[in-house]
Amino acid sequence: MKQIFEIKDDKIIEELLGNVEYGTLAICVDNKPYSVPLNFVKIGDALYFHGAKKGRKIDILKQNMQASFSVVESYSMIQSYFSSKEELACPATQFFKSVTVDGNIVFVDKYDEKVQAMSALMQKLQPEGGYKPLSDEAYTKVINATLVYKLNVEKLRAKFKFGQHLSQERFEMIIEHLAARGDDVDIVTIEAMKEFKNGV
Amino acid sequence: MKQIFEIKDDKIIEELLGNVEYGTLAICVDNKPYSVPLNFVKIGDALYFHGAKKGRKIDILKQNMQASFSVVESYSMIQSYFSSKEELACPATQFFKSVTVDGNIVFVDKYDEKVQAMSALMQKLQPEGGYKPLSDEAYTKVINATLVYKLNVEKLRAKFKFGQHLSQERFEMIIEHLAARGDDVDIVTIEAMKEFKNGV
Repeated sequence: MKQIFEIKDDKIIEELLGNVEYGTLAICVDNKPYSVPLNFVKIGDALYFHGAKKGRKIDILKQNMQASFSVVESYSMIQSYFSSKEELACPATQFFKSVTVDGNIVFVDKYDEKVQAMSALMQKLQPEGGYKPLSDEAYTKVINATLVYKLNVEKLRAKFKFGQHLSQERFEMIIEHLAARGDDVDIVTIEAMKEFKNGV
Repeated sequence: MKQIFEIKDDKIIEELLGNVEYGTLAICVDNKPYSVPLNFVKIGDALYFHGAKKGRKIDILKQNMQASFSVVESYSMIQSYFSSKEELACPATQFFKSVTVDGNIVFVDKYDEKVQAMSALMQKLQPEGGYKPLSDEAYTKVINATLVYKLNVEKLRAKFKFGQHLSQERFEMIIEHLAARGDDVDIVTIEAMKEFKNGV
């Protein structure tokens, strides 16, 4: 059952990571986990983050650079009666795309790489521009004061849940219900259901 | 600077946790972190989850029950030019509400508590009903086959970022830009900015 939710297509995964603004970073020390939501941008095989140079997160990373980062794009809630004819609660679920990246964190020391990371993040979050390039000397002080760190992707798992495991009958019932409800998210959910029906 | 983002009002935190459908659970073993997005429901001082009885997550939990769970409600992207008159990228950000809960996981063995948890989750995700109550014997087999576990809240931090640290002038510039862009999320972001301007 699990395998049919797995997505292996690099292009689809890149697109998701390019669209979603934040994920949640999991780190730990002395086997005590710590989680924190962060904006990110992917460049090559690394996810880049930035923040203050001090704080609990940094204290932990200095002791243990291993990390796991999860990104979610959530889609429609699937009400149980969308696909149950027996009035059972069990089919209730939420469709989603998720990507989890495991790897090691590296602090970025090189000024140019910090500029590249911040530029890519701005390009992602503000593609229309409207600011001096990050290489401008107006930013020297703030870039020096900012911590940039990256998660080198060692393992990446993508899981997309869009009813791929359902019978044709239940699958079509859900599409009918989503179309009837007709929220914006329902329309894109129907498209995703059709796109991923037969796996990728 | 940090403190002004912290929210201490229990009612506001409860409301957020009642609205947001999922968060990301961070756990670890041998100092290797693992992150996974999960639907959840809060009952009293515990967050309840459910899933399969086997898998990597369960293998880890059996060795280390410590966990950290982060929930995010994301609001408008704040473009840098919303509040920078010098064409600097720095003010670009995203407004958000987040809650992070640290504590220990407990596997729920009692059948009645499992029913209570699954009922509360259904009430959260499908408040309109349309299914037999979870106490119905039609569910006995599936509830026995489902793992229910809870995170007992030991530490809870809520951080809401809505420009509380900005000067009145920049704060008002952002509101003007959000109103001009006028997406649904921008309208609710303006409301939240006003609500949390002076802290809670």
